Amino acid sequence: MAEDTQSTITYGIFNETTEHEARVALTPDIVKRLKRSSITCMVETGAGSAAGYADEDYAAAGARVSDAETIINRAQAFGFVDRPSGDLIDRLPKGSWVIGMLGSFTDEEYVNRLERNGLVGVAIERLPRQLSSAQSMDEMTSQNSVMGYKAVLKAADAYGSFFPMMTTAAGTIRPAKVLVLGAGIAGLQAIGTARRLGAVVTAYDVRPAAKNEVLSLGAKFLELGLDFSKGQGEGGYARQLTAEEQAAQQAAVDGKAAEFDVVITTAKVPGRKPPMLLTKAGVDGLHRGAVIVDCAASDLGGNVEGSQPNQTIVTDNGVRIIGAPDLASGVATTASNLLARNVADVLAHFVHDGSLVMDPNEELDDALIVAGRVNTPAAKEEEK
Amino acid sequence: MAEDTQSTITYGIFNETTEHEARVALTPDIVKRLKRSSITCMVETGAGSAAGYADEDYAAAGARVSDAETIINRAQAFGFVDRPSGDLIDRLPKGSWVIGMLGSFTDEEYVNRLERNGLVGVAIERLPRQLSSAQSMDEMTSQNSVMGYKAVLKAADAYGSFFPMMTTAAGTIRPAKVLVLGAGIAGLQAIGTARRLGAVVTAYDVRPAAKNEVLSLGAKFLELGLDFSKGQGEGGYARQLTAEEQAAQQAAVDGKAAEFDVVITTAKVPGRKPPMLLTKAGVDGLHRGAVIVDCAASDLGGNVEGSQPNQTIVTDNGVRIIGAPDLASGVATTASNLLARNVADVLAHFVHDGSLVMDPNEELDDALIVAGRVNTPAAKEEEK
Repeated sequence: MAEDTQSTITYGIFNETTEHEARVALTPDIVKRLKRSSITCMVETGAGSAAGYADEDYAAAGARVSDAETIINRAQAFGFVDRPSGDLIDRLPKGSWVIGMLGSFTDEEYVNRLERNGLVGVAIERLPRQLSSAQSMDEMTSQNSVMGYKAVLKAADAYGSFFPMMTTAAGTIRPAKVLVLGAGIAGLQAIGTARRLGAVVTAYDVRPAAKNEVLSLGAKFLELGLDFSKGQGEGGYARQLTAEEQAAQQAAVDGKAAEFDVVITTAKVPGRKPPMLLTKAGVDGLHRGAVIVDCAASDLGGNVEGSQPNQTIVTDNGVRIIGAPDLASGVATTASNLLARNVADVLAHFVHDGSLVMDPNEELDDALIVAGRVNTPAAKEEEK
Repeated sequence: MAEDTQSTITYGIFNETTEHEARVALTPDIVKRLKRSSITCMVETGAGSAAGYADEDYAAAGARVSDAETIINRAQAFGFVDRPSGDLIDRLPKGSWVIGMLGSFTDEEYVNRLERNGLVGVAIERLPRQLSSAQSMDEMTSQNSVMGYKAVLKAADAYGSFFPMMTTAAGTIRPAKVLVLGAGIAGLQAIGTARRLGAVVTAYDVRPAAKNEVLSLGAKFLELGLDFSKGQGEGGYARQLTAEEQAAQQAAVDGKAAEFDVVITTAKVPGRKPPMLLTKAGVDGLHRGAVIVDCAASDLGGNVEGSQPNQTIVTDNGVRIIGAPDLASGVATTASNLLARNVADVLAHFVHDGSLVMDPNEELDDALIVAGRVNTPAAKEEEK
């Protein structure tokens, strides 16, 4: 087709196949943005509908809306909210680039499959977040921010009373006391949102640096009387605590939690089992009607003992535990727009003079490329 | 039993039988309050559980938890969130007092049945809200306030983007534009809550007095360029507009609504068909992803054309219409506490020297008593 000759790279997006996923890896705004970099976008029919983007919106922005087979045959790079299924991997042409959350920390077999199929795997979970050039690619930050906001909405919706203080002719309602465990991006956003709604907010994080951030948002920091110095882990994530530290922390947090109406836990560690932040003892100490939102709930366990992903469990003592691993997907329009920008910026980073090129000597490329290194000119150069 | 001789009135509460009802007409706090007025409370087993109040909480507060039959046989007055079913009416002893939202404006047959059964019917929907002595009895105000708060949480949860403005490395998200139609108690609470969450809020009401209230909360007032003066109806509710006024208002509101992301309609008129505030033309003008919460959705119709009670409808153009008639029930713990205080204050109003007494010459009694007037000493006096 005539239009193709104007573009050097074609970027393809499919319907996400993961359950509970309403997001899409490309939005009409980003189609326009990529077009300015001479990247043509192809979008599978209906891919954006769950996120509020219609096929005609994509077409109007300059994307081609098509079936999956056509996209597979014409695009050189593919973007994902999550990652392609094994079936889809087997259908992608050799040499294609796959950009997404590939699960490379935990799923070696998946990465090997990409490699065997001759695909280039760009694993966003490995983004070196401290690099300033990586900030606009930081899907985890953008999605965790959405998650923290949504966690508060879920908690407020499930809670049987008000978040703000209310004075009425029939009496005064005291504001909700909210405890946020984990004060990373998601936790800070949760603190801000709960405070907006009028709750009295306290937060805790093992990283000492978190305390000032919590205080700067107007929340209280939960003082446990324990010292977990050197808590800052690699890449800005909370490190795994030792077993002893965990036990001491758990006992203290469990004990303090009893005075709160709402507990929101946000300590997701990408690709690893989430740390336990509230045990059964802590849950049992909460009062009837208390609400817990566990953003890290997963099949491997969550931050809260007894949480189950995508389930709300009411304990015998009337505490509601909401296992909410997919909160960003619940704000799908905006989450997709931010994510699409992140993934597009990763793509654009590898486009040089109309080709997809990697340079393993560059920190960003070295971190992100988990499969297909030998297929690059730079790597070939080394092989000689 | 020995304790009974200390009390002069026994007040009975049952499990609410209406679908979608989590509230309860009595809470442990109010049990204690009534005890100080020598009123003994009896609560059906499990009546408070959906609202977060356990049987043991009632017992600890001094209520007797029992089965319905025992309560029917021992109490002289019965309080309801809604009203007793026809079956229950037939089981209540002659001379019992029934306090609740009896539907007396629309259901004459129901009131006749109370009368035929020799019951005293106290209809809270007839409360003269302008009386200062009635303010702590004002169930509609307390529940509408809860409703307005919850309507915003529902809207925010359903909306695919943020309510507040957010600045991220991947771009700035503009705040949501929220339109509140109907600026009574519920509407004002919705305005306040949406503003807390960071939305840009505009509101509209046919009553001219509403404009200053809207502005005082920091929201904009929707200017239609139309004059509906003398819009204030009896009892503080919006009056029914004439057909011509309605058509002009609808066309103007429908047109203006197109610029908003979220529309919340709150114009419930007790016992009557709710006024139409947004027609199909208005709904069709909204953008894909817009959210409507219709608090007045009912089987008689709602404020929004096409809304259905307790359903979420997604239109062909991607607008989500949430029909939410039971929002107060979704904040059941606090809603019940406020409501229990309201109903208890109605009860206490009629207790004089250890007896339930009405005085039809008093404005409040005259308004509230819809059945059983002849059973009162004062009324008997007149008959002589």
